[in-house]
Amino acid sequence: MHRYRSHTCAALRKSDVGSNVRISGWVHRVRDHGGVLFVDLRDHYGMTQVVCDPDSPAFKTAEVVRGEWVIRIDGTVKARSEDTVNKNMATGEIELYAKEIEVLSAAKELPLPVFGEPEYPEDVRLKYRFLDLRRETLHKNIVKRTQIIAAMRREMTIGGFTEYSTPILTASSPEGARDFLVPSRIHPGKFFALPQAPQQYKQLMMVAGFDRYFQIAPCFRDEDPRADRLPGEFYQLDLEMSFVTQEEVWETMEPVMRGIFEEFAEGKPVTKEFPRIPYDVAIRKYGSDKPDLRNPIEMEAVTEHFAGSGFKVFAGMVASNPKVEVWAIPAKTGGSRAFCDRMNAWAQQQGQPGLGYIFWKEEEGKVVGSGPLAKNIGEERTAAIAAQLGLEAGDACFFVAGEPEKFYKFAGEARNRAADELGLANKDQFALCWIVDFPFFEYNEEDKKIDFAHNPFSMPQGGLEALENQDPLTIKAYQYDMVCNGFEIASGSIRNQLPEVMVKAFEMVGLSQQDVEDRFGGLYRAFQYGAPPHGGMAAGVDRVVMLLTGAKNLREITLFPMNQQAQDLLMGAPSEATPTQLRELAIRPIPPVKKD
Amino acid sequence: MHRYRSHTCAALRKSDVGSNVRISGWVHRVRDHGGVLFVDLRDHYGMTQVVCDPDSPAFKTAEVVRGEWVIRIDGTVKARSEDTVNKNMATGEIELYAKEIEVLSAAKELPLPVFGEPEYPEDVRLKYRFLDLRRETLHKNIVKRTQIIAAMRREMTIGGFTEYSTPILTASSPEGARDFLVPSRIHPGKFFALPQAPQQYKQLMMVAGFDRYFQIAPCFRDEDPRADRLPGEFYQLDLEMSFVTQEEVWETMEPVMRGIFEEFAEGKPVTKEFPRIPYDVAIRKYGSDKPDLRNPIEMEAVTEHFAGSGFKVFAGMVASNPKVEVWAIPAKTGGSRAFCDRMNAWAQQQGQPGLGYIFWKEEEGKVVGSGPLAKNIGEERTAAIAAQLGLEAGDACFFVAGEPEKFYKFAGEARNRAADELGLANKDQFALCWIVDFPFFEYNEEDKKIDFAHNPFSMPQGGLEALENQDPLTIKAYQYDMVCNGFEIASGSIRNQLPEVMVKAFEMVGLSQQDVEDRFGGLYRAFQYGAPPHGGMAAGVDRVVMLLTGAKNLREITLFPMNQQAQDLLMGAPSEATPTQLRELAIRPIPPVKKD
Repeated sequence: MHRYRSHTCAALRKSDVGSNVRISGWVHRVRDHGGVLFVDLRDHYGMTQVVCDPDSPAFKTAEVVRGEWVIRIDGTVKARSEDTVNKNMATGEIELYAKEIEVLSAAKELPLPVFGEPEYPEDVRLKYRFLDLRRETLHKNIVKRTQIIAAMRREMTIGGFTEYSTPILTASSPEGARDFLVPSRIHPGKFFALPQAPQQYKQLMMVAGFDRYFQIAPCFRDEDPRADRLPGEFYQLDLEMSFVTQEEVWETMEPVMRGIFEEFAEGKPVTKEFPRIPYDVAIRKYGSDKPDLRNPIEMEAVTEHFAGSGFKVFAGMVASNPKVEVWAIPAKTGGSRAFCDRMNAWAQQQGQPGLGYIFWKEEEGKVVGSGPLAKNIGEERTAAIAAQLGLEAGDACFFVAGEPEKFYKFAGEARNRAADELGLANKDQFALCWIVDFPFFEYNEEDKKIDFAHNPFSMPQGGLEALENQDPLTIKAYQYDMVCNGFEIASGSIRNQLPEVMVKAFEMVGLSQQDVEDRFGGLYRAFQYGAPPHGGMAAGVDRVVMLLTGAKNLREITLFPMNQQAQDLLMGAPSEATPTQLRELAIRPIPPVKKD
Repeated sequence: MHRYRSHTCAALRKSDVGSNVRISGWVHRVRDHGGVLFVDLRDHYGMTQVVCDPDSPAFKTAEVVRGEWVIRIDGTVKARSEDTVNKNMATGEIELYAKEIEVLSAAKELPLPVFGEPEYPEDVRLKYRFLDLRRETLHKNIVKRTQIIAAMRREMTIGGFTEYSTPILTASSPEGARDFLVPSRIHPGKFFALPQAPQQYKQLMMVAGFDRYFQIAPCFRDEDPRADRLPGEFYQLDLEMSFVTQEEVWETMEPVMRGIFEEFAEGKPVTKEFPRIPYDVAIRKYGSDKPDLRNPIEMEAVTEHFAGSGFKVFAGMVASNPKVEVWAIPAKTGGSRAFCDRMNAWAQQQGQPGLGYIFWKEEEGKVVGSGPLAKNIGEERTAAIAAQLGLEAGDACFFVAGEPEKFYKFAGEARNRAADELGLANKDQFALCWIVDFPFFEYNEEDKKIDFAHNPFSMPQGGLEALENQDPLTIKAYQYDMVCNGFEIASGSIRNQLPEVMVKAFEMVGLSQQDVEDRFGGLYRAFQYGAPPHGGMAAGVDRVVMLLTGAKNLREITLFPMNQQAQDLLMGAPSEATPTQLRELAIRPIPPVKKD
């Protein structure tokens, strides 16, 4: 017989009754039922109930073992009586009568419990991560994470993609976030950087003639810890394709991502065909470029109904500035003064002057708009608004006015707030969409100049022609996001692989050809030697896993995370370097300035 | 039609004749045959021959395009005439008659050629890696590399393993090689380290209750560049299993590795059942713990035949020191004075006094030993040696004498030299084996004390009992290597998961419990809380790929390698950090000391 086990702790079934078997694992718990000991033995695969009678030769050892000891048990499989069968356990029809127990590894008093999963201070959990990871939920999340990543690899391979690893020790990147630096020992005073993303390398691979690259890519950004980002490293499903249009990227990746969501959604519905929503439309309908489409509310402009109306605040704004619009946030079933006042109070908490509203009720067989706004604009305009938005008695509508670019974010929040309060969204689904046609440039208020809105690597729609002749703020990029339930889960673009278009685009944000060469030398040089049209995207592995596990905290889906202070409490990192290490690297830490 | 291609450059067949198609790719070369232009168009998948007649509307563009331009071609598929069919090309039965050519990206004068693959200075190749990678051999090697890695993932998954990613920003490790350090911005004066291997994390995962972990793991060692190791990063197929004996690790991994070799060996034979050779036996038979088993020579001790013999040098050594042995290196077909003298001269080049030999020839129907040694020891002993080693007329044998631990390496080299000179080895095969039962301790001549021979994490055979009662230098470890054609391709062990055995083992090399805690705190702490018996191994991805591609240089199987001076010439790394970066990291480079 195998030294440690003939079966895992999840393997024994009724058909094994009568067999003599061997299992090994952790003592999940021990119970004493009138002198008979019951040991739940746990391993990676599952749990088996072990019974130890006082007359078993194993009894003496069974009396000693405690939670989380590792033991081997030899015994005989017996069927449980009808009334003790546990249908929730794979092994719930049998129990193992212990004949011999060997302690493989004892455990000291535990600093945190494994059985029962109570809340525990995070620093203890991270310091004893090897115990924390034994807890059922976390173990399950981590296994699911690995399954999701394996499915990503499988689906990408089926799609004709090949996984390539790009370097981790590379050059400092000017892409935005802060780099982690690695001092070079061989070249004192110089530094490698860890990649923020394999963006440049994957584009170089396309120039090198590879096609359909993907990678579960480790990425590194030295940012201050945030709730939705762990310090240090994170993973992307990164991909790039040659000779493609953006439509082909969408048509390739939509089935991959839908397939992954469907595989792990545990029956929740997943969008069959992802709507492709232009950025401008998303902003106007949802007040966000990451709309939660589970929320059925769609905003609409109702400016005309307020222009010249008796509601002087809005009418005056509309009259004085042609950019001003009034947007309506229709709220089906929200037609009560109490709800509308609650929304108004919430808006004030958000620093807004308030949130105008109308609600409709039935009075004497007629649908009547109520509230101060309805009074001010009169019956006819109120009815016109209801008609435009399809609102009826029992519904409400909120209004925001101003220049849309200044209020759209708040409008989007109000849209979400209203749906949440009213329970309008079916939360148990994965609502996916593409946001497309992002603006290429944006106006930087601070520096009073135009900047790249997102990715300087993406191709402007219309190419050089557009850059030379079009109002820059109206130029769109071949750039797109994939959004699920209000979270951006992937982002990509068709790249700008034409050196002269690249130079022109940078010139428009005030950077010279020299700047392009300095910042993106490898890529810019490569584009001079035959660069295919190419594009791709990158999906955030962590975000997808969080959506699919329902975990609220990144540390619930990460094996060995750092804490919020960017420390690995288990391994004790970061730590001081030895004088030899520092000397070899030719660096010296600068002692902190003492504050008196 | 698709914007860029209806077919790849490898897709068109005779069945497509008559179709109007679109392909895109790189101009591999252009030939002018009597006014008709032939363009070989290349992409990731293959090559298509395009024909452009002077009366084609595409001709004007075809005249302009040069090597490595990226173009799109619309045209009609025609069958090649019988005498121009190219059977070596997938598309060799057709050619495409161009009707329209669009230049997608022109190329400047190339700094290195893509077509033809002449040797080129390495620094140019690395700086323009995106061109270098377009060359057929390198492209093929990289694709094969990705296929091998994908096969590893597939086979491991079939074997019930799950891929987990372990942290890349972690703690400095005392495992031997030099760490790359990463300054922590949030904790000034402290450093993360990049992992030399995920050793501690994978063991912690076993303690955490996961089972059958694997990872294609990036590893980092800041070593001085060597021919067989690229600066910076490399990849391991890393794995670990719980509740296993070493035999189970072997039985699990042997089919995986054999399968990978068989899949990519291109018909070359692969060892069916890997011999399990104890370390001591390997040293005695092959003079190496990385024996090349393609070489059929097996050494044997022939001490008794020289003890008390007329060959006074050996006889004297044997008489004066009981540790002295004489080893024979039998060389079938080497039975000529010329060959034996060549071997002797080679040995002298290696700094040896010489290499004694006997060679056998047939004289008057009798097999006779020749050479000075044969004369000295006489006919009977010479015949006894031939009988022991199965040598006949036409064969030779070489002899080394002394304390085996001092000469075995040289003996191993002589064994290889003899086989190479005589062509005894069938090189076109993959000869795999396990080397097992490595010594746990070794004697450190310099410090006059015992040290760990290999891995302080491995379990000594016999456990605490052996550590307490056995001569330490006779204790074996549950440690093993996998060897192919003379290269170590994997290494592993059953781990020492018992804190008291760990402390005792460290004590024996002069380290205290405190040292254990300081160096392996995470792991040592974890072992106190229920640690399963576990073990595993790690295989070098690069080495396996080199064996299977036949590449002699790591840069021939690596996408974006650094040069031998640890520089990435393409991206310009390492480079100077900005003053802001240095200030944020609270470090200061120490200027080099000027030497006058």
